Amino acid sequence: MSEAFRIGLLGHGTVGAAFAKLLAERADAIAAITGMRPELTGVLTRTQGDFESLLASSDLIVELMGGIEPARSHALAAMSAGRHVVSANKLLLSQHGEELWAAARANGVQLRFEGAVAGVVPVIRVLQESLAGAHVERIHGIVNGTTNYILTEMRRSGATYAEALRQAQELGYAEADPTDDVTGKDAAAKMAILARLAFATPVSLDQVRYEGIEHITADDMSYADELGLGLKLIGTAERVDGGLSVRVHPAFLYGGHPLASVDGPYNAVTIESDAITEITLSGPGAGGPQTASAVLGDVISAMIPPASTPETFDSLPIVTDVVSAFYLYLEVEDRPGVLAQVAEILGDHGASVRSVVQHGLGTNARLVMVMHRMAESPFFEAVERIAALPFMRSRPRAIRVIDEEFM
Amino acid sequence: MSEAFRIGLLGHGTVGAAFAKLLAERADAIAAITGMRPELTGVLTRTQGDFESLLASSDLIVELMGGIEPARSHALAAMSAGRHVVSANKLLLSQHGEELWAAARANGVQLRFEGAVAGVVPVIRVLQESLAGAHVERIHGIVNGTTNYILTEMRRSGATYAEALRQAQELGYAEADPTDDVTGKDAAAKMAILARLAFATPVSLDQVRYEGIEHITADDMSYADELGLGLKLIGTAERVDGGLSVRVHPAFLYGGHPLASVDGPYNAVTIESDAITEITLSGPGAGGPQTASAVLGDVISAMIPPASTPETFDSLPIVTDVVSAFYLYLEVEDRPGVLAQVAEILGDHGASVRSVVQHGLGTNARLVMVMHRMAESPFFEAVERIAALPFMRSRPRAIRVIDEEFM
Repeated sequence: MSEAFRIGLLGHGTVGAAFAKLLAERADAIAAITGMRPELTGVLTRTQGDFESLLASSDLIVELMGGIEPARSHALAAMSAGRHVVSANKLLLSQHGEELWAAARANGVQLRFEGAVAGVVPVIRVLQESLAGAHVERIHGIVNGTTNYILTEMRRSGATYAEALRQAQELGYAEADPTDDVTGKDAAAKMAILARLAFATPVSLDQVRYEGIEHITADDMSYADELGLGLKLIGTAERVDGGLSVRVHPAFLYGGHPLASVDGPYNAVTIESDAITEITLSGPGAGGPQTASAVLGDVISAMIPPASTPETFDSLPIVTDVVSAFYLYLEVEDRPGVLAQVAEILGDHGASVRSVVQHGLGTNARLVMVMHRMAESPFFEAVERIAALPFMRSRPRAIRVIDEEFM
Repeated sequence: MSEAFRIGLLGHGTVGAAFAKLLAERADAIAAITGMRPELTGVLTRTQGDFESLLASSDLIVELMGGIEPARSHALAAMSAGRHVVSANKLLLSQHGEELWAAARANGVQLRFEGAVAGVVPVIRVLQESLAGAHVERIHGIVNGTTNYILTEMRRSGATYAEALRQAQELGYAEADPTDDVTGKDAAAKMAILARLAFATPVSLDQVRYEGIEHITADDMSYADELGLGLKLIGTAERVDGGLSVRVHPAFLYGGHPLASVDGPYNAVTIESDAITEITLSGPGAGGPQTASAVLGDVISAMIPPASTPETFDSLPIVTDVVSAFYLYLEVEDRPGVLAQVAEILGDHGASVRSVVQHGLGTNARLVMVMHRMAESPFFEAVERIAALPFMRSRPRAIRVIDEEFM
């Protein structure tokens, strides 16, 4: 009979319950692989159970409570007591990661967190292990399934943002309060974690600039079709002039980009490096069973021997101004000289137009431009000047375009 | 100053040379991650160097010689002497894997082989670690970059097989002797390794049925377009009625399949399981720097602690007859009654037609049918009977179709 491996579970929501079920189903197979039989010694929730006694009877703690406290204190206490910790808590890791990873190293235990980013898509392990020796240049990710579902539906059916969000809520792809998803904050937390691993530089959530999808319209989608582009909420972490930029914003992708065809509630991450060109990992983003599967993979790795998160050994500066191509959408009064004035302001700021589509709408007109790549801050200065022009009928909308130069 | 970690290299071809270069470039970063500085203690080739003295001065052996001997003997000797081994030798692992993995377990050392399958696409690690606890149902893979390049070119440019092969050779995507690639043998070796890991069942190359792409024509490609299908050389390993089927053959894929859009010399693998739905991993297939990067990831994992290949704990029977949908291409004399006779034979064998395209060509006609899913052996019996009909103008061609049922 194989030795028991005792697991204490913190949290019993959607993922916690799915993990408990999966662990029971796969216990025999895990015993065959590891020589130890995993068993759940107890479950702690915010209202039930005693952490100290759970810790005392566990070889490993699985933290699926979410939020900062008491998750942070419990994880630190478990590692101080020599226990491995597996967590799927992106908010905790993106805000207190360095403290937690340092505790893991100091105590010689493992802290694993595959479930924190992109559900079952094994991007954490691939970055930490397969690509441990690679010089990563850039990561692009669709790391929020809710927003990808909404954008996919808007494109597919012509629905408005509000309609697609309501549909996502009905299908369980969006929470009743979708704020963290639709503002880009959830994706930003995940990109902070990925950037930390890929670039060995401390990155926390408050260093990630993010924009959400609330302002994307059905018109943006139809112009995307017209221009042969896909529209996604993209997280980017990349080396820029000896520094590091980490950001989340909606972006148009050319059809050939590996992320352009990722539809519905899926996640996908592309990792670029000179030596490897690029690899893409994709699969279902969130969901109880998927995240539970990622957590279980981590638990098994902790039962077999470890790979710990290395101390940061680089300290790249965080870059805030980067170079982007843009799509610029303007609603203007339809009168002579409008295009000339817009073009003059763009030219003043060094912005160069790649393509223009103009549609008349009675006394108004829509002007949609795709711009060549340029530094973001002068571009946004130009947009502010354009916004102040007397013939503007609504605020200009600018959306980044990820162009072919990635190939 | 960090401690040295001594690496002995067997083989100095394309991958070996790329590995030596990459190791030197990344030595500082690896020292920062692992606390040990990797250094190459020597290189053994078929004509130069002494294995015993290389082994004595190495902490780990990297085997990039290819072929069975002396690679097998050296790997076994290294593990007996307590050394970790990293190999990218798919032929060796698909034919002597159990012997080698048993030696690794018996000696408490690691045998890692990410570079043996799909270049830098981290499918070995994901199967062995991330999905160690998953009940995998099916793997589909494009695991040979040469044939994927040839098929992509045939579709893109309308080139014949011979023309596309010649172009692949000129660009270095195909060897002067492309036999192992174009017959499907290379892909079969890789699928044997993946099936072994995913299903914990011993699988060797001689248990994998394989067909190549030599008989694919430009006509097949244009019918594929007409029917909205992609044509790829697909490796499959899947549970079938309590058994396991492992096979490689050309197959049509519906446009929505995650592998349908994988073009050029890329590899991609889709892993399906109830708990995870499916994940897809893709990236450049072979190539010296890519495979070297996979080998380096393994070396770093061996420097940090291990995850060893578990003993097989299941023994699923290998299934040979499976259910498939088919595309059937017939060149016939254009006279009354032809379709009726073909349809009658198909009906006799339980084959049901899903769609038909017929083209007149003077006195001949081309008849292309897509069939519903059925067991392969009665379908092939029907094809043999059709082949013997007096009005046939060439041998029938049957190609499998991977249909939407995977979704």
